[in-house]
Amino acid sequence: MKKNEVRQALVDTASRLFYTQGYNNTGINQIIEESGVVKSTMYQNIKSKEELLLIYLQTAGEQTNEALEAAAAKGKTPKQKVLAVFDYLEELVKRKDYYGCQFLNIVSEMPRDARQVRKQIKKQKDGVRALFARILEPIDKADLADEIYTLFEGALIANKVHGDAWPVVTARNIVNKII
Amino acid sequence: MKKNEVRQALVDTASRLFYTQGYNNTGINQIIEESGVVKSTMYQNIKSKEELLLIYLQTAGEQTNEALEAAAAKGKTPKQKVLAVFDYLEELVKRKDYYGCQFLNIVSEMPRDARQVRKQIKKQKDGVRALFARILEPIDKADLADEIYTLFEGALIANKVHGDAWPVVTARNIVNKII
Repeated sequence: MKKNEVRQALVDTASRLFYTQGYNNTGINQIIEESGVVKSTMYQNIKSKEELLLIYLQTAGEQTNEALEAAAAKGKTPKQKVLAVFDYLEELVKRKDYYGCQFLNIVSEMPRDARQVRKQIKKQKDGVRALFARILEPIDKADLADEIYTLFEGALIANKVHGDAWPVVTARNIVNKII
Repeated sequence: MKKNEVRQALVDTASRLFYTQGYNNTGINQIIEESGVVKSTMYQNIKSKEELLLIYLQTAGEQTNEALEAAAAKGKTPKQKVLAVFDYLEELVKRKDYYGCQFLNIVSEMPRDARQVRKQIKKQKDGVRALFARILEPIDKADLADEIYTLFEGALIANKVHGDAWPVVTARNIVNKII
């Protein structure tokens, strides 16, 4: 494997394992084994499991932002744009390979002193708040952005608890009432 | 230590460690060491780390239910009772020793096949939905219970992400609008 292939193999394997079995459940040895990378070459490419976690969150963050922007673009009015984001969430949580929001999964695993990871997750979620504020600004309702965001998070975590899409539908109903 | 003291020491230590550092971050050896229990006596009292987790969730569940009932009892009208639950949440998340909802912390750590644990967490949260339904039934608004519940979860998980009480205040504002 070339240097960039080694790095990519490590990132891909770590990302899959962190998502499906959790960060603390995943040992660095499992990542090395399943990525097919020679152990001694790993540390030339990646410093630690935490570095892989930060790359995972960064990549998942970019993909999520793109998906949310694309979903919002389907609506015509600001209200329709916000509702379109919740339609996307409903579709997302029904996917067979979906097992919760990557960022909420990780934040619950982190001890209080995992500052860098917690900071990155907060930044990602601040981006969602900003997206709703941007959508609602033209109708002078940007002050609702954090309410919509709190519903967004409620939908995702209650879906995780109940293993069902009803919390997303419920959150969408409230959004429909308050905008 | 007597038999019931051994069991209690294990449960207390495990509960503290599961809450402050997470379930997967806590090894059975750390629980034994910090509880001061002799290793060979442990397995006469507790079968596994998962058994300790189920006891932890059960105990935390009973305490949470009592606290939520007590909070609701402070309100006179159904609407005031629901708002009083959110006032309690605001107070709760501001405590120095608070580090997220016990049940949401654990659910995010669990792999898909941890059926018994996930079932117990779902049961706990179904109790919260039922509490809101009971409160709202006299004014014929029990159909709002799941909306209130989704806001309850959104408040708790967004507090975890942002390390701030504003999501609870935001959720309370929505509750105030929709009842």
